[in-house]
Amino acid sequence: MTTRLAVIAPGAMGSAVARELVGRGAQVLTVIDSRSERSTLRARDAGMIAADLSDLPGCDLILSIVPPDAAIGLAQMLAPVLRQSPTKPAFIDFNAINPATMQDVSAALSGTGCDVLDGAIIGLPPQQGRDGPTFYISGDPDGRADVLASFGLKLRQIDGPVGAASALKMVYAGINKGLVALGTAMFLASERAGCAQALSQQMSESLPNLRGQLMHAIPDMYGKAYRWVPEMREITAFLGENDPASGIFDAASQIFASIAKDADRTLIAALDRVLSQTDSGDLAP
Amino acid sequence: MTTRLAVIAPGAMGSAVARELVGRGAQVLTVIDSRSERSTLRARDAGMIAADLSDLPGCDLILSIVPPDAAIGLAQMLAPVLRQSPTKPAFIDFNAINPATMQDVSAALSGTGCDVLDGAIIGLPPQQGRDGPTFYISGDPDGRADVLASFGLKLRQIDGPVGAASALKMVYAGINKGLVALGTAMFLASERAGCAQALSQQMSESLPNLRGQLMHAIPDMYGKAYRWVPEMREITAFLGENDPASGIFDAASQIFASIAKDADRTLIAALDRVLSQTDSGDLAP
Repeated sequence: MTTRLAVIAPGAMGSAVARELVGRGAQVLTVIDSRSERSTLRARDAGMIAADLSDLPGCDLILSIVPPDAAIGLAQMLAPVLRQSPTKPAFIDFNAINPATMQDVSAALSGTGCDVLDGAIIGLPPQQGRDGPTFYISGDPDGRADVLASFGLKLRQIDGPVGAASALKMVYAGINKGLVALGTAMFLASERAGCAQALSQQMSESLPNLRGQLMHAIPDMYGKAYRWVPEMREITAFLGENDPASGIFDAASQIFASIAKDADRTLIAALDRVLSQTDSGDLAP
Repeated sequence: MTTRLAVIAPGAMGSAVARELVGRGAQVLTVIDSRSERSTLRARDAGMIAADLSDLPGCDLILSIVPPDAAIGLAQMLAPVLRQSPTKPAFIDFNAINPATMQDVSAALSGTGCDVLDGAIIGLPPQQGRDGPTFYISGDPDGRADVLASFGLKLRQIDGPVGAASALKMVYAGINKGLVALGTAMFLASERAGCAQALSQQMSESLPNLRGQLMHAIPDMYGKAYRWVPEMREITAFLGENDPASGIFDAASQIFASIAKDADRTLIAALDRVLSQTDSGDLAP
């Protein structure tokens, strides 16, 4: 019997995941917003099957892969359909939401009779020629998500309740993207203060790996900064006001916002000047 | 003619620097607070010569190497002595102070007739068996500090005004210690949220260098956290209220303060649990 999965929505990540699953023989349904030509094309390209909401309860799993602010809405939209259905797919929320928001997703689906699992995707969308992301699951004592591993996804169960996978996404993104915010701010400050060349040289000597990572990650951030602003806010909310570290992510969201609205590319030009510093400074004789 | 230098004070860094200079044949004077037996011993051990304030104007260079909050006071104390002296040593402030504080140091010494140079020391104190720190200088168009290179110090002139070397110290420490604050906060959050093992494994795979650096730098911070609190505040002041990144260092100072006053080692025990996570998690079948 063919395994039938649903992936909503066919965004960059969702469609790339669907292509992997289809390639290994799964049927993958999706619900397409016909107003978005791009989504329609991506879904077709990935071999996804356009379906109605009422088709979804017939799937084994429903994967929610949407922007963070759409996670609760999707759960609320599906709840009545799942409640009325005799078949009960497991619902996995794979979104970059904080554990409290994940509890809201769970609550929206309570009374449907469906298992609600917490998921997190760490890494870039699957693509030919690079390692795919890792799919973390928590709150799945019966291993209902394990079927995804048989379709080639790198799946890892976290021995923890619903919320642990969402928390993992928060702390991992906090380190990875928080570092980019920190580097961005310090590189800009070094430019303003006239010590960018010295900083570059000193880092080459004493922090070469960190410098290499920032040299790659900062330019890669320019085009994503607008998406990272709400993600940093999710981390701020995750930590809560009583954790002083929430201030790091409040600052990070502002730093990424300043890059996102850097329309005349003043900041980006300054960063590029720092990133292009070579290590030609000589020691005094 | 023997080169005569002054290094004030004989703290951990000052005395280690003096030992290097003495070892290469310089005479190194210092002023010892006789109330501190430890300083007296360190100075003697480094081959420094105990001197009075009135002896200092006879030196070629005076190196100020004191805690950040003592930098202005030392300059103010030396000012009358230097003003009245016919010989005019250059004064180098090597302290971890922000550029505005460095301007205050300069102002305290204006009218003395002495050149005031801005310095920054990046790295651990010189010690047998490891690379010494790098000594950065700005505001030294005549190369008056270059004599330090001839006594074995790794000296680098920054082509910038007084303030540029202090700024370099701020941005370098901002990246290096800001990362430790970020890692500390996220590791603690992962422990609270039950995803420390998964975080450790994910970082081993996708951020191995960063993980390695944090595994080393976080335990190394425990005993220094109390000193890093004021250093983070200097960086906050350096960036200023209008730079959102100042919030990162306001948070970092609070994070280090929480470690510094972690008397029952609750936080340190939690961090040690995260740091001791092995990468034994298996992928689902």
